[in-house]
Amino acid sequence: MQLQKTFLAGLLLSASLFATAQNDDSLMIKKITDEVLLNGKAYSNLYTLCKTVGQRLSGSAGMYKGEAWGQQALKDAGAQNVYLQECMVPHWVRGKKEEAAYKKPKGGAAINFHVLSIGNAVGTGDKGVQAKVIEVKNFEELDKRKDEVKGKIVFFNYPFNKTLLRGAYGDAVRYRGGGASAAAKYGAVAVIVRSVTAAYDDNPHTGALHYDEALPKIPAIAISTKDADKLSNCIKGSYKDDALYIRTNCMMLPDTIGHNVIGEIKGTEFPDEIITIGGHMDSWDPAEGANDDGAGMVQSIEVLHALNAIGYKPKRTIRIVLFSNEENGGRGGDKYAEEAKAKNEKQIMAMESDGGSEYPRGFGCGMTKEQFAKVDTWKKYFEPYDADKFSFSEGGGGGSDIGPLQRLLKTAQFGLSTTGQRYFNFHHSAIDVFENVNAQELHLGAAVMTAMVYLVDKYGL
Amino acid sequence: MQLQKTFLAGLLLSASLFATAQNDDSLMIKKITDEVLLNGKAYSNLYTLCKTVGQRLSGSAGMYKGEAWGQQALKDAGAQNVYLQECMVPHWVRGKKEEAAYKKPKGGAAINFHVLSIGNAVGTGDKGVQAKVIEVKNFEELDKRKDEVKGKIVFFNYPFNKTLLRGAYGDAVRYRGGGASAAAKYGAVAVIVRSVTAAYDDNPHTGALHYDEALPKIPAIAISTKDADKLSNCIKGSYKDDALYIRTNCMMLPDTIGHNVIGEIKGTEFPDEIITIGGHMDSWDPAEGANDDGAGMVQSIEVLHALNAIGYKPKRTIRIVLFSNEENGGRGGDKYAEEAKAKNEKQIMAMESDGGSEYPRGFGCGMTKEQFAKVDTWKKYFEPYDADKFSFSEGGGGGSDIGPLQRLLKTAQFGLSTTGQRYFNFHHSAIDVFENVNAQELHLGAAVMTAMVYLVDKYGL
Repeated sequence: MQLQKTFLAGLLLSASLFATAQNDDSLMIKKITDEVLLNGKAYSNLYTLCKTVGQRLSGSAGMYKGEAWGQQALKDAGAQNVYLQECMVPHWVRGKKEEAAYKKPKGGAAINFHVLSIGNAVGTGDKGVQAKVIEVKNFEELDKRKDEVKGKIVFFNYPFNKTLLRGAYGDAVRYRGGGASAAAKYGAVAVIVRSVTAAYDDNPHTGALHYDEALPKIPAIAISTKDADKLSNCIKGSYKDDALYIRTNCMMLPDTIGHNVIGEIKGTEFPDEIITIGGHMDSWDPAEGANDDGAGMVQSIEVLHALNAIGYKPKRTIRIVLFSNEENGGRGGDKYAEEAKAKNEKQIMAMESDGGSEYPRGFGCGMTKEQFAKVDTWKKYFEPYDADKFSFSEGGGGGSDIGPLQRLLKTAQFGLSTTGQRYFNFHHSAIDVFENVNAQELHLGAAVMTAMVYLVDKYGL
Repeated sequence: MQLQKTFLAGLLLSASLFATAQNDDSLMIKKITDEVLLNGKAYSNLYTLCKTVGQRLSGSAGMYKGEAWGQQALKDAGAQNVYLQECMVPHWVRGKKEEAAYKKPKGGAAINFHVLSIGNAVGTGDKGVQAKVIEVKNFEELDKRKDEVKGKIVFFNYPFNKTLLRGAYGDAVRYRGGGASAAAKYGAVAVIVRSVTAAYDDNPHTGALHYDEALPKIPAIAISTKDADKLSNCIKGSYKDDALYIRTNCMMLPDTIGHNVIGEIKGTEFPDEIITIGGHMDSWDPAEGANDDGAGMVQSIEVLHALNAIGYKPKRTIRIVLFSNEENGGRGGDKYAEEAKAKNEKQIMAMESDGGSEYPRGFGCGMTKEQFAKVDTWKKYFEPYDADKFSFSEGGGGGSDIGPLQRLLKTAQFGLSTTGQRYFNFHHSAIDVFENVNAQELHLGAAVMTAMVYLVDKYGL
């Protein structure tokens, strides 16, 4: 691309930004977005988080380091008071590096696969498990072939359906979440799950599973997409009668103490009305949790920073919450809502960013029809930034950390939505690192979050 | 992010995709997008282009290798006839690696800067140029300080204004394009231009300049953003009286032969009505031209491939053009339109993709009001893919390769538009490589291009 056309587009865009800025709110939102895009600290905060803290799995040393980072970052952003809210969190540990291999191949070297234990899973212990593999596409095939399952390792090879766009994750994650218990029901000794990702590479993607407490708990591992195909070919080919060896040393330890990290500025007119904004502190352990959910934390902190930087004094209390334990328990979100209810807090809105650092497209809006009618009139302010897609659903739309506020206190929900096509390439894998975040997209997300908070603060909901 | 919320979002999205698919066009567009997202060849074609051809600067060996790749790719996509359209192209060569340094620092090692000659520029020759540097922010400051310029190197240190979003490039590129002649007017011996990019790193970004033929042609180099700040600090600090040494060996050779690479399928009902779709073959030389504009080429080829793959027989002739020499001359686009005019072709629409491989947001639509009124009724088909932003402008909106068709034949223009915030981090620099392209976003762009071509083919314009 060379000169002329983009230059013209630029002039047109500048003119349209100017034309929009004809009233106070437009001007204020331009001031907010300019501040974040030019001077925002989200990207540099994320760098510090990723490179000095790293992974932050619940109960790990990284979690505690993350909590210390969060308190400092909130103070630096201008929070008037910063405090911890204690909650018990699950403490799952991975143990030593997992192994999955055909150990005694016919006249050759062992065939190894790239795998990661699925979070919350039990391990095989040092001895490992050796069993034949039965590959199924989905739960329906498992049910049909239930008589073949006993004593075997069930391999769920369900593809990530790219045609579902943002729905592909939800569609495929059922096997990671529920595959182990579904297979245990028919006597399987372990499960292997194709990684839930759009990428075709060697990175396995972990994430949580949930055991049915009425069934035996069996080991569960995620396999990279390339190696899922390799394993499938092995089973269909000359390894069909061979037993696969897997070894995992993960285990669930007793619950331990974690904390929501909270920072706030008190409202000048309605200090009792609380606007909660957050992302989650914990991350999976293979990388830095840059997109999931370092991005959401630094964007939330940026809301506070940006409002302070432009000298805006909120009427209502702005409270940033770095939620504990979203990934494998949701204890932080639950605790926050329970305490808010116990204290009879007036939580007028909650906003969450947990969809990665990509280009922001708008908000999922979980609120009453009347509230949404009001929010919808603000769409025009988000149009210049292409973040004007507001999706209404009365009972949802926010995110898993603020969902409990909705259930307990009927708090209106805003979930930042993004273009979302790159996120699941990185998510829960070794490549969810700082380098896979774009500064401008991250800051644009923080900017539109701040703009929405400004509007709700000014006009209420 | 864990299970529940995205799963729900996925179900809702699937339901909404299904609900939309209530008429034939919706069904056909779903078929098209499914085909591209599941089986598209754009990403693998781009891999071959980037890794076996690489850079494709006009007149270089890479350009000829690219033309061979293009013919094969068009045949593989199912083009009925593939041919070359000859056009003369500029032949600018970079010569050996450029140098910019303070050579005789006070008691220390030389201070080196990361630079690249700006395309079309003259070189300093082997001896180089050594002169004091005068830093200016913009053309206004240059004009004010014109008496200080004679015999010096002018350093345009104009920042990329991130608050302009997609307008930032057009705003800043004026200094790369016109800085040399503006400075030569006042007697400068060379110019250094801050790279036109949102990134803050060590990569200089090249691109074209245009000399005013009435003025002396002086050497021109782009400097990385980090080194622009370093140079600025040197000038303000202890190097303010020192002369900077620059050496460039680039030069413009006589024009040489290049080709537009063309492949088409004839229409079944109106073979004389032509739909032109294209990206450009040439790229700058520091990298692989993956985003600029390998992406646009493979997306255009994918339109043909996808229509063939689903068995759709177009009524009108679908012609894919891989344009020669967009970057530093625009000769391919000019030639194509001139020949179309000479043959009195009925070019009913032209579509271009040259905005990088990012998430597609819609189309710039340069056409009559009546035509746009028709196109605008199709918006609903693009909504499920978030590619429903249609920007109307009667006299523009397509792109620089198809612009000549509009000027000569009033052909309606469609330019694929993207979220566009990452593109200028890579653009014209050493990191415009395959690894900085996301497969799903690339394919989604190709899918919505194909959908629009299908609609225009079916209903005319």
